[in-house]
Amino acid sequence: MSSEKIAKAAKSAFEESQLISSGERVKALKSIREQLAIQKDEILAANVEDLKVSRCTAQVEVDVGRMSESLLKRLDLGKGDKWDSMLQGIDDVAALPDPTGNVSYAVELDDELELFRVSCPIGVLLVIFEARPEVVVNIAALAIKSGNAAILKGGKESNRTTLLLSKAISTGLAQTSIPEKYIQAIQTRAEVAALLELDQFIDLVIPRGSNSLVKSIQNSTRIPVMGHADGLCSVYLDESADMEKAIRIVVDSKTDYPSACNAAENVLIHESLLETVWPKVAAALLAANVTLLCDPPTLNGLHILNTSPANLQTHVKPSTPESYTTEHLSLTISVLSVPSIKAAVQFINSHSSHHTDAIVTESEEAGIMFCRAVDSAGTYVNASTRFADGFKYGFGTEVGISTGRIHARGPVGLEGLVIYKYMMRSKDKKGHVAGDFGTGKKQFKHKKIDGERLWISRE
Amino acid sequence: MSSEKIAKAAKSAFEESQLISSGERVKALKSIREQLAIQKDEILAANVEDLKVSRCTAQVEVDVGRMSESLLKRLDLGKGDKWDSMLQGIDDVAALPDPTGNVSYAVELDDELELFRVSCPIGVLLVIFEARPEVVVNIAALAIKSGNAAILKGGKESNRTTLLLSKAISTGLAQTSIPEKYIQAIQTRAEVAALLELDQFIDLVIPRGSNSLVKSIQNSTRIPVMGHADGLCSVYLDESADMEKAIRIVVDSKTDYPSACNAAENVLIHESLLETVWPKVAAALLAANVTLLCDPPTLNGLHILNTSPANLQTHVKPSTPESYTTEHLSLTISVLSVPSIKAAVQFINSHSSHHTDAIVTESEEAGIMFCRAVDSAGTYVNASTRFADGFKYGFGTEVGISTGRIHARGPVGLEGLVIYKYMMRSKDKKGHVAGDFGTGKKQFKHKKIDGERLWISRE
Repeated sequence: MSSEKIAKAAKSAFEESQLISSGERVKALKSIREQLAIQKDEILAANVEDLKVSRCTAQVEVDVGRMSESLLKRLDLGKGDKWDSMLQGIDDVAALPDPTGNVSYAVELDDELELFRVSCPIGVLLVIFEARPEVVVNIAALAIKSGNAAILKGGKESNRTTLLLSKAISTGLAQTSIPEKYIQAIQTRAEVAALLELDQFIDLVIPRGSNSLVKSIQNSTRIPVMGHADGLCSVYLDESADMEKAIRIVVDSKTDYPSACNAAENVLIHESLLETVWPKVAAALLAANVTLLCDPPTLNGLHILNTSPANLQTHVKPSTPESYTTEHLSLTISVLSVPSIKAAVQFINSHSSHHTDAIVTESEEAGIMFCRAVDSAGTYVNASTRFADGFKYGFGTEVGISTGRIHARGPVGLEGLVIYKYMMRSKDKKGHVAGDFGTGKKQFKHKKIDGERLWISRE
Repeated sequence: MSSEKIAKAAKSAFEESQLISSGERVKALKSIREQLAIQKDEILAANVEDLKVSRCTAQVEVDVGRMSESLLKRLDLGKGDKWDSMLQGIDDVAALPDPTGNVSYAVELDDELELFRVSCPIGVLLVIFEARPEVVVNIAALAIKSGNAAILKGGKESNRTTLLLSKAISTGLAQTSIPEKYIQAIQTRAEVAALLELDQFIDLVIPRGSNSLVKSIQNSTRIPVMGHADGLCSVYLDESADMEKAIRIVVDSKTDYPSACNAAENVLIHESLLETVWPKVAAALLAANVTLLCDPPTLNGLHILNTSPANLQTHVKPSTPESYTTEHLSLTISVLSVPSIKAAVQFINSHSSHHTDAIVTESEEAGIMFCRAVDSAGTYVNASTRFADGFKYGFGTEVGISTGRIHARGPVGLEGLVIYKYMMRSKDKKGHVAGDFGTGKKQFKHKKIDGERLWISRE
């Protein structure tokens, strides 16, 4: 099928689905879960095949650093409880509250003329992700739950698995009132390139992957992109930082899961702490096997540590300007001394990726200033950057983390997959026309009313 | 100043302004209003100059259809009460509720660990608009009120006026704590092109103008674009349409202000009305001097009218397929018969610009179906499409009308110029770390709390 046909089919499926109730969507998720269970053996066999081919390639590519063991781990759908978690994930999404049909604005414009702003799906999503087959099912579930049609493209290494997963999804949908083409999978980059041209059919692109993938997609489409750029998070130890909090928060922010985007990559130290709090924080980091890239003052502050811990010589290095704009994603952290909270804020605003940044402070005033002035999706006081996550925030599941500034910012739950429409109804016996309003004529009432008065139920 | 310097200055100004209270912003608006009053004569003299030059060019260009009298009207800042309205607009914006600092999500993640989602400005806006000088002041006021820095580019015909208006704004700002570079004006397309590359400094582009302007900007930038494409609105007369409502709503939708984007361009007639309601609606449209472009069945339905009204011969013409995708913006409407509400919905979804569409019906069920199934920013029952407007909706003022599907849809008030950030605070004596949570460890509480508990006031 041509890319245009795929996109048109997705748009038609989306439009057809607008009259389907939220209960039907939940039924569709159950039906998909059943189909996946039925086709489990076949799907896992295809996954073994994907793994086999990737291992052969990997032998060649690992040498040039293009493919890693972690890719193979992500690709392996039979590993541990991954399959079961995937099915459980469908149930979890099914159980979440319906993000559509919520009224966020309700006014009476005139007697018998009511206006409602009601959340509704966006339309057709194009989601591009790495070679992690379970993401196909995860995204399909989120799309169906929120009422969006989706076209999915996983990493090419997972093509065999993805194909069967999407077939199982289609078979599941075919047994419901949701159109079969609601969820479609594509396999090639050429198809992606062609789809990025079709802004009349596709409403939102969600690339999950590297910063360069996101930028290259932003550069090649008119369609809005909800993406995640770097995760360059910082922790700032303020003048008044408590020693224990400083140690716990810096160590957790760096080591709890170093390859996550919400792990800290920079720690900024108020210069008054260079010989007090900082050496203790450094010792804790070194004890956790973290490499420190330090500017001269913070390097100098470590003379107190003398020769212990043992890895002091091997794990402490001078930083370069690039250290502070590098997403290490490993047990390495860049350290900088700053003369004031103002300098810390300025540094973060110009060097961080506006993802999540934390201050450790005992000063109410400094905490407030930091949270207001740091222009990031998350600004925390005395809490680890690792809390930046949809599940931890209480969204149940996560579509992704957006470093963009419009529509959705930070961890994105199902709410990120909906927009709203305005619905207006006149109950007047002559209907309502705009020409009746104006100077010397009728005036608008703009009286807030109860959103529950919306005459359209979501069922 | 180079475009990069302008963009950097805007970003710095934005960041510096984050600690400024909402009261200070209102003071800044007052200060700008005063400066404009002081510099009125000078500004209007520059406007006369702009008009003079444009009139000379207009003589040449009107012949080739590139410039119209309406451009000159828009350009003329001395016309009628335009100047006073412009100043009044500043007061109106100042009086609107602060769109920032509103809490839309507040949970306790754990004892002493609170998370708040708080509305905040987007950052730096690049706003491109036609040669209407008062828009400079209008947008500047909206940007300052919502806490965004802005770079403004008006149509080149208004360059002299724009320059002086933006100087008055800077002078006004210089007397407050808001940075002078908060609002900057640029004059050339080359600067716009250069700025569109600078996604590290500019967060949102708002083009106000033609569909082709919007598309060309979307094609040439990674920065998100909040734009308005066509306004191709339809009114559908359902099987059960009431005659009087049908006449009033179709006539108002078409004639109340034909060049507005929320004016109706298509009217769809259920085929059961071809010889009953339709001829009366047609007669009312003809009486209002509207030209009708009809498909064969609706054309045929007009035989009943015989020879009256007088303009029947001159104002009724056969439609072509292009008629239904043309934004007439004049006293012309395209007419199509449809066999069912389903056909009407499908036609609207595939031909309209997803702006605003209305149904005239006495059936509750048909109204509900139409509102759910029509994928437009506004779906109305028995009300004119002309109600699609920020002022009428009760937003006080309007940033524009978005035909996009993310961030903001339909008429956009100040809310369209804000996003949110998450603020988290631990009051625990050891601070909070993520490693303490998980299987066999602490569990998240996710307890909804009162948003008023946010520890950061907007003042």
